[in-house]
Amino acid sequence: MSQPAITVAELCDRIRVQPPATIAGVAIAGVTTLELVGENEASFVLKPRYLKVAAKSKAAVVLVPEGMKTDDPRALPVPDVWMAVLALLEHFHPAPRSSGTVHDSAVVDASARIGANVEIGPCAVIGKDARIGDNTIVDAHAVIERNVSIGADCQILANAVVRHGTRMGDRVIVHAGAVIGDDGFKYELAGGRLRKVPQVGIVVIEDDVEIGANTTIDRAGFHETRIGARSKIDNLVHIAHNVVVGSDSIIVAQVGVAGSTKIGRGVMIGGQTGIKDNITIGDGSKIGARSGISSSVKPGSEMMGYPAMPMPDYLRSLKALKRLPAVMEEVLPLVREMKRQREESDEDGDW
Amino acid sequence: MSQPAITVAELCDRIRVQPPATIAGVAIAGVTTLELVGENEASFVLKPRYLKVAAKSKAAVVLVPEGMKTDDPRALPVPDVWMAVLALLEHFHPAPRSSGTVHDSAVVDASARIGANVEIGPCAVIGKDARIGDNTIVDAHAVIERNVSIGADCQILANAVVRHGTRMGDRVIVHAGAVIGDDGFKYELAGGRLRKVPQVGIVVIEDDVEIGANTTIDRAGFHETRIGARSKIDNLVHIAHNVVVGSDSIIVAQVGVAGSTKIGRGVMIGGQTGIKDNITIGDGSKIGARSGISSSVKPGSEMMGYPAMPMPDYLRSLKALKRLPAVMEEVLPLVREMKRQREESDEDGDW
Amino acid sequence: MSQPAITVAELCDRIRVQPPATIAGVAIAGVTTLELVGENEASFVLKPRYLKVAAKSKAAVVLVPEGMKTDDPRALPVPDVWMAVLALLEHFHPAPRSSGTVHDSAVVDASARIGANVEIGPCAVIGKDARIGDNTIVDAHAVIERNVSIGADCQILANAVVRHGTRMGDRVIVHAGAVIGDDGFKYELAGGRLRKVPQVGIVVIEDDVEIGANTTIDRAGFHETRIGARSKIDNLVHIAHNVVVGSDSIIVAQVGVAGSTKIGRGVMIGGQTGIKDNITIGDGSKIGARSGISSSVKPGSEMMGYPAMPMPDYLRSLKALKRLPAVMEEVLPLVREMKRQREESDEDGDW
Repeated sequence: MSQPAITVAELCDRIRVQPPATIAGVAIAGVTTLELVGENEASFVLKPRYLKVAAKSKAAVVLVPEGMKTDDPRALPVPDVWMAVLALLEHFHPAPRSSGTVHDSAVVDASARIGANVEIGPCAVIGKDARIGDNTIVDAHAVIERNVSIGADCQILANAVVRHGTRMGDRVIVHAGAVIGDDGFKYELAGGRLRKVPQVGIVVIEDDVEIGANTTIDRAGFHETRIGARSKIDNLVHIAHNVVVGSDSIIVAQVGVAGSTKIGRGVMIGGQTGIKDNITIGDGSKIGARSGISSSVKPGSEMMGYPAMPMPDYLRSLKALKRLPAVMEEVLPLVREMKRQREESDEDGDW
Repeated sequence: MSQPAITVAELCDRIRVQPPATIAGVAIAGVTTLELVGENEASFVLKPRYLKVAAKSKAAVVLVPEGMKTDDPRALPVPDVWMAVLALLEHFHPAPRSSGTVHDSAVVDASARIGANVEIGPCAVIGKDARIGDNTIVDAHAVIERNVSIGADCQILANAVVRHGTRMGDRVIVHAGAVIGDDGFKYELAGGRLRKVPQVGIVVIEDDVEIGANTTIDRAGFHETRIGARSKIDNLVHIAHNVVVGSDSIIVAQVGVAGSTKIGRGVMIGGQTGIKDNITIGDGSKIGARSGISSSVKPGSEMMGYPAMPMPDYLRSLKALKRLPAVMEEVLPLVREMKRQREESDEDGDW
Repeated sequence: MSQPAITVAELCDRIRVQPPATIAGVAIAGVTTLELVGENEASFVLKPRYLKVAAKSKAAVVLVPEGMKTDDPRALPVPDVWMAVLALLEHFHPAPRSSGTVHDSAVVDASARIGANVEIGPCAVIGKDARIGDNTIVDAHAVIERNVSIGADCQILANAVVRHGTRMGDRVIVHAGAVIGDDGFKYELAGGRLRKVPQVGIVVIEDDVEIGANTTIDRAGFHETRIGARSKIDNLVHIAHNVVVGSDSIIVAQVGVAGSTKIGRGVMIGGQTGIKDNITIGDGSKIGARSGISSSVKPGSEMMGYPAMPMPDYLRSLKALKRLPAVMEEVLPLVREMKRQREESDEDGDW
């Protein structure tokens, strides 16, 4: 929060927008929501219905989408509101940057290859033959086991564990307490009893992936578990062995994906959903929160419920379910009376 | 378990009760359940139906609620059984107390302000400008990042991570492996691709909160995620960014609460429940285990299921659902035959 | 992967099988799936339908069950395919073995009793009066608190926390980030407010148990939480206080078992299932994924759903539910028309 203020002109310069002359000189000391915004700060509006709130706010500058009608003199129209907000956030809260120092208490194996300008925090452990790319930060107490390869500009946060052999691209963020590359859950009957099958594959994390706090991603049985580029995984998610997640997918908190399942590209999976082993979720599919997916779904599907159905069927089914007790009360007595009458008339016929 | 025995008279003195003369001198060497209780130990009865079990037990003393009829000579009537049990537990198993020592292997930043009688365990890390209140225990391997403020008489257990800027009141317990203040899960399309929105808010934990093992509580996007005083959160719970939990609420294991949702005061949420983002759970509501709450609920509601319904509706709906296959088998053939007959008679009419 | 090749004859010797003369001298440089297998490697077939894939693979040797018909000259018939695969895996990927060294940065209390050939990793912490059995590995940053007893040949992986008093048998594996023996979740009203009930019991883990990454197993209120011999628990599972899991049970990822529940022997519990407190799951039961079990089930039950039903009922119920909207649309108009007609004819009768 100790960053200097920035003028509207400076902001516009960064996002390559022509500043309105009327407010070009206005200084911005921070950026936040309309609810919280203070006198010298900027805020932003994404939908017209919030313009009223903006009008009553103390904001010095209000970012609005180009073309949205407003006569608020503090409005700064921009072609991409989030680009402008992100520019301000980056100014006031710059992303963590490596200090380039290795803490005295860190335990770095002599065989590890550490890139330029790497930060290694207190008590962090870097194992044999591990490689850490340039500018990467390994925070306090993170454990990077032997033969792990981590790219450049990554952040491995406090207490995360990256088990042996894991390969990670650039700009990956692993949040606190996440465990990457621990054993898959695999037992087979052999010699009359259940035995652990050694998990000898690895985990591969592609570029720009983010992995949430206390999430677990298991190593493959033989080959690899893979998280595609730019995919984002929330907290407390479980990804089992051999799973492949395509690029640009979003997996919300507490989801579980069972072994060998393939999640496509651009898939969105709502929180607490469970996905069966050995199935495929087609590219671009959307899975509603708390669903249970027990068979493959085609690309572009929107599924919900357990067992999951296409969204319109799910909504019809829900509606029907809600009416069910009342409908039963209505239908059953009538049907039963008819049945009784019919049986009586049958008996009549027997006479 | 190396605490000395305590007499009934001493116990009664602590809980301000008049000891019955007949057992005032009886020594109590421990306290446990009726199932486990040994010859020199105390146990307790909360409901009359357990008096029989108590009668057959080896207990030296049986705590019973005042007014419960029993002729067991070992009975010790007290106005508040749990107060008496807690007094005994506190005697035999005193709560952890700070040793007041900082372990040689701990890494405490020179700028950190450490209160009186603070214990800092092996390899614990205390960051820049962090503040730790009097008598607080920071256990082995806990990581307290920069600018964190922790009150007095707290316990931060092994391997917990408290990320930068978190503010915590007094007597807070953070269990092993919990992660407080890691980034919220927020991405927005900007410049044509999904980008991480920096999470620049904090987490505030009020007095007397307890947070379970491996639970994650994310920092706010702009402002604060807040857990109200005396609220208790179990293991493996996920609390997303901007969530506010009121005071005196109970959240059982593996619950997930999505972003910006407000949980009222005195709310109870059963295990594995999921709660949607941006809704409100009214004060005093009770949410059954494994529910999915996708819209706001009024104060004092009792909800269950997914989608959640008021408890009586849920129970009716369950009952109807259980009967459904049989009812369909009963109704459908009859209805179809009627339909057929009706079509035939229509056809007759066409003649 | 730097293990030397092994001949078919050597493999057969290890698994006590007579090698076929035709391939006895063939060298095996690795073992993997048919999909991945390379020229000098072995693979395996468990079901006849994969023989075709095997025929087209590059495998040097294909393990097949004795008696399965094939004319592939590379086939090696064995009485127990998994025994052979495990023998090869053990050859090429030997299980981690203790280095017998204690890292300089480890913090081992002087009173701890450390067995022969124990490995203690960087920054691991071993508390007062803890006992560690022969050949056990305690990995980097694991925390073994006071009075913990761990048997021989165990592996406690990075960042795991084993809280005070926990007792563990031999050959137990605790994966990264797991928390064993933290407090149960128990509060009682006493003196007019909710108070924490100290959890003074312990956790007992029997021989050959495996516990997944970031799983939490709470200590008992008064006595013990127990995991039976050879039971396997996956990642992110929550086992509450006083729970007893019998031997040879399998608990898949993200399951939650509430307090004081008894899980029998040889039980299988599918992922994300929730099990209520104070109930019993009979020996040999199978619980489907994502179920909610709210009352005891008899030995040998197969249950699914929430509320859970016996598997055939569940499947009937699902089928009925899927048909429900269509059936309602079919039945309701007819029933209503009949009702109307009947009311009209009643009215006729009133004339």
